[in-house]
Formats: sequence, C-alpha cells, structure tokens
Amino acid sequence: MYKIILVRHGESVYNQQNLFTGWTDVALSDRGIEEARIAGKLIKEAGYTVDHAFASVLKRSIQTLHYILDELDLLWIPEQKSWRLNERHYGALQGLSKIDTAEKYGEEQLQLWRRSLTVRPPLLEKNDPRSPRHEHRYDAIPDEQIPYGESLKDTVERVGEFWHDHIVPLIQQKEHLLISAHGNTLRALIKYLEDIDEKTLTELNIPTGIPLVYELDDDINPIRRFYLGEDEHIERKTNEVANEHNVNE
Amino acid sequence: MYKIILVRHGESVYNQQNLFTGWTDVALSDRGIEEARIAGKLIKEAGYTVDHAFASVLKRSIQTLHYILDELDLLWIPEQKSWRLNERHYGALQGLSKIDTAEKYGEEQLQLWRRSLTVRPPLLEKNDPRSPRHEHRYDAIPDEQIPYGESLKDTVERVGEFWHDHIVPLIQQKEHLLISAHGNTLRALIKYLEDIDEKTLTELNIPTGIPLVYELDDDINPIRRFYLGEDEHIERKTNEVANEHNVNE
Repeated sequence: MYKIILVRHGESVYNQQNLFTGWTDVALSDRGIEEARIAGKLIKEAGYTVDHAFASVLKRSIQTLHYILDELDLLWIPEQKSWRLNERHYGALQGLSKIDTAEKYGEEQLQLWRRSLTVRPPLLEKNDPRSPRHEHRYDAIPDEQIPYGESLKDTVERVGEFWHDHIVPLIQQKEHLLISAHGNTLRALIKYLEDIDEKTLTELNIPTGIPLVYELDDDINPIRRFYLGEDEHIERKTNEVANEHNVNE
Repeated sequence: MYKIILVRHGESVYNQQNLFTGWTDVALSDRGIEEARIAGKLIKEAGYTVDHAFASVLKRSIQTLHYILDELDLLWIPEQKSWRLNERHYGALQGLSKIDTAEKYGEEQLQLWRRSLTVRPPLLEKNDPRSPRHEHRYDAIPDEQIPYGESLKDTVERVGEFWHDHIVPLIQQKEHLLISAHGNTLRALIKYLEDIDEKTLTELNIPTGIPLVYELDDDINPIRRFYLGEDEHIERKTNEVANEHNVNE
C-alpha cells in the first residue's frame, strides 16, 4: 500500500496583515511555526515515517517542511523543491489588502477571482517589480510559461506536470512521501488523487497544519484518506479556513 | 572563476558535554545556532550568492545549512545530503567523555587517535546499538562499506568519492556551491582542493561558523582562499578550535 501525506502550511506574516500573497515570498509567523511543529508531532504520534519530501520554492512551505522533518528526526531525507508546487499566482492582487480589494471591486468580483475555476485575477504587467521574471529562482521557467496571474485551472495544470513527472514515479518506488504546499496546489494534488469534479474542487477547504494521509492501491487509487489528530482540533482548523479572510492565498 | 564556500558547523549539545560525537546525530546547541546565523550573515555581507548546497546526513550540518540559507533568503535552492560528508566515524569512542577517555587510555593514545592519519579508533562491534547498520538513513551503504570506526585516511577516501562524483561536476557547471560539513570532512575537501601533504592535513584546524571561500580557475585549482569576517573574529574562532577539548569530533 502506497502512502502520501499532504500538509498545508500555516499562518504567514501576510495572513496576519490580511494581504493577498500568491508568489510573494513571506515567512511563517510564530503561529505558523507552531502549526508546522504540531503537524510534525501528529505524524510522529500516528507512527508514520517518510522517505522523500516535497515543497514549493516559497519559504513558508519550505520552513513548514523543515519544522515537520525536525519533529520527525528526518531532516536527512531527500527534499525536492519546485515552483510547480507554488501557491496559485495571484497576479496584480499580490500584496494588496483583501479588505481594500473587496471595497474597490466589490465582494462579488472578489468571490469570482477566488472561487471560479477559470477566471484569472488582474494580471501583472510584464515589467512589474513583482514579476517572477525578475527573480533568480525562476530562471529555469521559459518566458512563455512565466505566470503573471493564474486561474485555479492554470495552477491545477502546472501541478499536474509535477504530479506525473516527479511524484507518481516515486510513489511507484513505494516511497512514503510528504508534500508541504499551499491551499490551491493541494487542491490540485487532491484532484489528481481523487479525480473530483469542478464544483468539489473549487469548494474544497483544506485546514492548515493538519496532515492529510492518503493510502493508495497499486494503481494509485485512494483506498482511504483521513486527517491526523483529534476530531475537535481538525474541526476547529477547518472552520478557521472557512472564514476566507484568514486564508493565505 | 568558480567559487566554493565551506562552513564547519558550530557547537552541538555533545560539545557542551565534552563527548566524542562522530556519527552520533546530535542537534546544534543555542550557541551553534547563533554561529550558523552569523556564518549566513557574513556570506550575505560579503555579497556572495549560492546556487546549490551540500550537507552531511547529520542534523548539526543540515541545521547549519538551513540557518545559513535562511539568512541568505535562499532556502529555495537545491540541497543535497550525503553520508559521505558525515564527520569521521569515531568507532567505540562515540558517546564517551573525552576526559574519561584521556584518563583511561592516556593522553598519548588519545593524540594518536586524533592526530594520526592512519590509526583507527577502537572499532564498534557489529551488533553494537551504535552501528550505522541499525539506522534507516544508511540503508543504501553496502555492508562492506559501513564504517565501524575510521582513520582520517578512511574519511578522506570516502569524501573523495563524493568530491569527484558530485561536487566537481557541479563546479564545472559554474554553480556557486556551499558545503556545510564537519571538521574532518572539510579537511578532506581541502586536501582535494589544494593537494596538501599529510602533515598539513593532520594539523589543519578549521574554525567553526566562519565561511571559507575558495576561488578556483578553470582546472579547479585554487586562485585564492580566505575566511570571511573581521580578523579579530577569525582569530578568536581559530584559537577556540586549537583547544582540542572544545572540538566536535
């Protein structure tokens, strides 16, 4: 039986300030660090181990991974970081206040940007200082693939490439995998794991810092999935992300 | 011009207790964490960047790497961890008090174990609970290569394999490399960089937490090498490791 554990990183300093984040590379807050440590303890208490770990190239996901591995005493396992696991690119909304944006564009438009599968946020200008093209870490992305603002569908597609090229082959080597990532990239991974429909995908809320375990059969179909920890804790964390203004996106 | 930066990890919790460490996987002390952060700041202030990082599979080296990368805002670069960069295996001395060992075997024998190129420490029994064979992280090492206690020469040889197979090819891709490792594996790397003689090798003292920069020509011969930081700081740290009882080995 194959196993994958997914973890959504916790609070960042942008969450605290209620700003759109996307590919902005902000650190975990003290609360986010604590969420990561708790995630590590939950995996350890459940008796799971991990052979190989993945994160995005954003530090809130990498820090989360390192705190978890430290708790598991597994800092030594291989880790692989990819921009394809980055949060959805939030275009020109990145760095803006969520409340100001709601006031400026209206709550309905905001919901469309957040909850539609195909609607993109306002795009960054090519010469915007926030463009990923200006950052060394994205040198390997060809010009035509650099995102200036993604729909959820765009994100799902680029996560799919990583899923098929890098994750599936390791699952088939019977490795136990840990993936530390973001709200929308974890949605995408769950789509590849479960083949869920559009509506379910756009409505899926994944709590932060709660390890989500998938047990898979030989054809990489889920046998069962479950969050680790006590029901009360899982419910509280799920309710937190249902309050959308608190979500890191 | 190629560049490599070497960093020796700082104080661990075994240093504090004055115990032989070797492959024992102990964490950095608070002081060791501070040394790592300072190393990161020194690299940053000197204006260097890094494309690819190496560490051993021992957490004091990995933690040092992560603190440095955090200071440099480069947590996203690829990192590669290998047992071949582990500290020299100190055999049956691992976990023993350095003072008790000196009293039991005499200072002369202790110096021989520490300073000879070819003398091995007392070996671990195959079924000793400290044997690397019992640890999942060393599963990939064939039985005949598992160390039960190494001479400095043994360590130099296995570091050499890693140097030729993994480090040299990356240097030639013009990557700027950072290697976070241990006293004896850094000695070994310096031997491959500079082709120093035996006496120099066994007498080489590398201060902890001070980045050592190598600038190399196209044939990977050193043009110059230097420690980063103020002379007074470098001198103080070098004197610290010259007091051998304070050294993590």
